[in-house]
Amino acid sequence: MSYYAEPIARLLEELERLPGIGPKSAQRLAFHILKGDDEAARRLSDSIVEVRRLIHFCPRCFNFASGDLCEYCADPQRDTASMCVVEEPRDVVAIERTGEFRGLYHVLQGTISPMDGIGPEQLRVRELLSRLEDGSVTEVVVATNPNVEGETTALYLARLIKPLGIRVTRIASGLPVGGDLEYADEVTLGRALEARRDM
Amino acid sequence: MSYYAEPIARLLEELERLPGIGPKSAQRLAFHILKGDDEAARRLSDSIVEVRRLIHFCPRCFNFASGDLCEYCADPQRDTASMCVVEEPRDVVAIERTGEFRGLYHVLQGTISPMDGIGPEQLRVRELLSRLEDGSVTEVVVATNPNVEGETTALYLARLIKPLGIRVTRIASGLPVGGDLEYADEVTLGRALEARRDM
Repeated sequence: MSYYAEPIARLLEELERLPGIGPKSAQRLAFHILKGDDEAARRLSDSIVEVRRLIHFCPRCFNFASGDLCEYCADPQRDTASMCVVEEPRDVVAIERTGEFRGLYHVLQGTISPMDGIGPEQLRVRELLSRLEDGSVTEVVVATNPNVEGETTALYLARLIKPLGIRVTRIASGLPVGGDLEYADEVTLGRALEARRDM
Repeated sequence: MSYYAEPIARLLEELERLPGIGPKSAQRLAFHILKGDDEAARRLSDSIVEVRRLIHFCPRCFNFASGDLCEYCADPQRDTASMCVVEEPRDVVAIERTGEFRGLYHVLQGTISPMDGIGPEQLRVRELLSRLEDGSVTEVVVATNPNVEGETTALYLARLIKPLGIRVTRIASGLPVGGDLEYADEVTLGRALEARRDM
């Protein structure tokens, strides 16, 4: 039995499909939408429709794009000699926020995960290799996540790309800045020790 | 500077206006909407528009309603001799879930809160009193929240309603079922002691 009128129940159902939104959050969001002004609800609804209408995948790097190419592929100021390979468009945002990378991106749209039946052919690996063909890229920074799937994908890509005479690097693992040795897991602390640098 | 294409930035902005949604959650939701199918995004967007179009306040009890009256006011099976007064429509859902109350509701749409400039005249108090006029209600259960504003509102209502010869009751405060004495705050534990019952 539902305790809600049908339009509310329908909104709750749609909200609960979103990641990280359980019944309690869905109810809070729905009641906020109901109590807020009409204009705010319309803007939210429109922005969902518009983002689907206007955003597509960049045909070159598979990041989200609103123009023909994404903003990084379209930017003539970017360093075309280095390319950062990431799993998802959100990772592009994370790397850009650091301000440490000025090259191009390539979004794999996933990681190799045999458990989920995802192999290299389900990812944008073929497209990555064809972008590397002309020899303009001299370094590929593999920035997949430092977990099992991400490491597997990184190793797989390194084995494919290194024979092309391109330098392949991996983002470092170690203790988070501001972190605490006491609370670090052994694997992370082990990596931090292994990758120690002269001061 | 924005790291997002404009339609994504706009969706993020609208999502961040929702309660409990910070930048990280907004990004996760937006990327989910972008990666999911068109149909799901359309359904979400439509359900927001529809809930605003179809839901209004019940003119009798001020709960949310999709028909002329809300489902409880429209239900001839409800016990019209008892009325439960709550702050918000979400509280009606909470009470219904217990299955312990079969009477009518009245939603105040807030609590008395002088700090926020909200007095009885901003709430649905006048409407409550006029519903009690015909004498059919013999008990009013005040189920405002057990915090300062809720208690103030409950006391205020009791002072208004008791002279009409109507019994006014208040939901009990005490330890939550499954709770632990050790972790209960002193005020709650004090209330639980004060309201102790013979076994």
